[in-house]
Amino acid sequence: MAHCFGMNMNERALDLHEKKKGKIEIRSKVDVKTSEDLSLMYTPGVGEVSRKISENIENVWKYTSRGNWVAVVSDGSAVLGLGDIGPEAALPVMEGKVILFKQFGNVDAFPLCIHAESVEEIVTFVKQVAPTFGGINLEDIAAPKCFEIEERLRRELDIPVFHDDQHGTAIVVMAALINALQVVKKELKDVKIIVSGAGAAGIAITKLLLSAGAQHMILADSKGLISHDRDNLNEVKQAMLELTNLNNVSGALTDGMKGADVFIGVSAPGIVSEEMVASMNNDAIVFAMANPVPEIMPDLAKKAGARIVATGRSDFPNQVNNALVFPGFFRGIFDVGAKEITEEMKLAAAHGLASCVTNPTEDMVIPSIYDTCAAESVAASIRDMFNK
Amino acid sequence: MAHCFGMNMNERALDLHEKKKGKIEIRSKVDVKTSEDLSLMYTPGVGEVSRKISENIENVWKYTSRGNWVAVVSDGSAVLGLGDIGPEAALPVMEGKVILFKQFGNVDAFPLCIHAESVEEIVTFVKQVAPTFGGINLEDIAAPKCFEIEERLRRELDIPVFHDDQHGTAIVVMAALINALQVVKKELKDVKIIVSGAGAAGIAITKLLLSAGAQHMILADSKGLISHDRDNLNEVKQAMLELTNLNNVSGALTDGMKGADVFIGVSAPGIVSEEMVASMNNDAIVFAMANPVPEIMPDLAKKAGARIVATGRSDFPNQVNNALVFPGFFRGIFDVGAKEITEEMKLAAAHGLASCVTNPTEDMVIPSIYDTCAAESVAASIRDMFNK
Repeated sequence: MAHCFGMNMNERALDLHEKKKGKIEIRSKVDVKTSEDLSLMYTPGVGEVSRKISENIENVWKYTSRGNWVAVVSDGSAVLGLGDIGPEAALPVMEGKVILFKQFGNVDAFPLCIHAESVEEIVTFVKQVAPTFGGINLEDIAAPKCFEIEERLRRELDIPVFHDDQHGTAIVVMAALINALQVVKKELKDVKIIVSGAGAAGIAITKLLLSAGAQHMILADSKGLISHDRDNLNEVKQAMLELTNLNNVSGALTDGMKGADVFIGVSAPGIVSEEMVASMNNDAIVFAMANPVPEIMPDLAKKAGARIVATGRSDFPNQVNNALVFPGFFRGIFDVGAKEITEEMKLAAAHGLASCVTNPTEDMVIPSIYDTCAAESVAASIRDMFNK
Repeated sequence: MAHCFGMNMNERALDLHEKKKGKIEIRSKVDVKTSEDLSLMYTPGVGEVSRKISENIENVWKYTSRGNWVAVVSDGSAVLGLGDIGPEAALPVMEGKVILFKQFGNVDAFPLCIHAESVEEIVTFVKQVAPTFGGINLEDIAAPKCFEIEERLRRELDIPVFHDDQHGTAIVVMAALINALQVVKKELKDVKIIVSGAGAAGIAITKLLLSAGAQHMILADSKGLISHDRDNLNEVKQAMLELTNLNNVSGALTDGMKGADVFIGVSAPGIVSEEMVASMNNDAIVFAMANPVPEIMPDLAKKAGARIVATGRSDFPNQVNNALVFPGFFRGIFDVGAKEITEEMKLAAAHGLASCVTNPTEDMVIPSIYDTCAAESVAASIRDMFNK
């Protein structure tokens, strides 16, 4: 289905990347024109700066750029729709994220695409490199190992750790849902939500919506609804059963969608039929975010009765994209010097982002990623928590 | 002796670092203004770029900025004159190097200041992060572990690995010596050379000069001349005995300097007296490069009879500084896509750098670090090797 975007797009993307020889470069914030400049920013002047930090390690935040740098760390094990393509092939994606960090959040990010097999290897690597960075953004690391990696790093590091595929996605989905529910005049606590995809994104979305007050959620993976009748669930999915599918509905995704108010897809192209959408409750909300080809195309979903449809694509209304979140989120975290990321920050960010759309409509539940309100509002929501 | 530079310099350096909040930032090479731009440099266009690299890993050099990025890796175990101050305190120095890489060589460098104790930890880290970089610049890692780390990485990686404290220093010293010998009309193969300091720099300088044809070299460490009479030599120093001090002179540095044509100091402040310089051969060459305070101050060395004096300092003639080497050296390596660094490249770089001074004099044996000829000439010397 890649033809949706045409060969032209692919060719032009290749051409751009080849001509520019990649997309990022380093830049000095200081001029080095005279020997005086050099003496201040390098030897001998820098010796005193290093000495001050060696006396008190907290001075690193005062005298270096560490406090504005985030490491975008990936092992290339779950990249876009491409899967486990390795660190080299992940590099263009990470360079792209780095540009978005800078452009929308004025956050300096650096891609670290690494060889690593095990949880232990990635955790060890990130702990080693941590002194250079103010925060860690884990990216495109396969589930379920991503959960353990993030959990361990959160415990073992004293700088914020954010797995974007989980939390960036969860925050932007929640923001879109806040506005969508306002349009259809339903309450989060009342609606039945089916989440298709129990990888990094699906699990995190479910957890965040539960934190926000959702009470009727069912998760589905490629083998069907996650229920007590399944005997092939990993630990993470089993743990989710404590909080979801309280009536223990079993069966296929089709069964979970019947009567649901909200479908959230972070799974696979084309797996939702018009009939499945038609079986949902009135004023159905369909977020079909498989990329680049959604679970169901927007026109079909609408035809089948969905009132609000969102995708991950830029060529339809309501583009639900992490880029609305991570630049502003790290901006806010860096501005307040937060040392960890809490559930409250994620909820605040979702509300901040949702508030950029002053009058939500069916075709506008989430701002455009070019709307500078997004990053500013997300950052402000974090700062406000600390300024209270 | 830090008062040589006055409190003012230190205060101004701290002020600059604090005001700018460090010295480096990331920058996009592509504009992101329209959704078209975003589609090409990020999703969905970037997917095709990643796919091309996953098909053939060599495409990473074509479509990403990897081929122009060097990692400046340090554990902070041997920083300037400050010693083992740790990764955080090393960061300002590495940020400074990054700026020099960009300014003089248009090489994109990134500081990776890491927690690591053992050789194994540093080697593992660098191998993990290698897919992101076109080359590795090891920096301020203590001897003797730096030798094993470099050796292993050279063997185990397929990108060039350069320990600047060894080879950058060796190349710039050799360049200065080529011109200094021309001024005093002596030949490298004939001169007696005493090297004070048997750490990373001293060992590498000795090896490179031997490669270039020097035949009479003696190394000294803080305990005296390295001879067969010593029973406290590490493996690296023992190995150097196969190639140096062929007459097995033993004793203190003073003994090694008697009758020497060339003194090369990469050791400690103030350890060379006027008497020691006076005991050298006619037309003595004294490179006193301990930083920031040299083994002997230039005016004293001159008074004692040295004909040519060089230091690491910018406030005296003949500043021997690695910054003359590493930007151009990596520029050349990246331009030709070299996968390893050979002894021939280092020799070529030294000759290239020396040639920037067309008429060497006592006060001009090495170009100023603001002379753009330096980086260009070093880079060209590498390119010429590959274009023959």
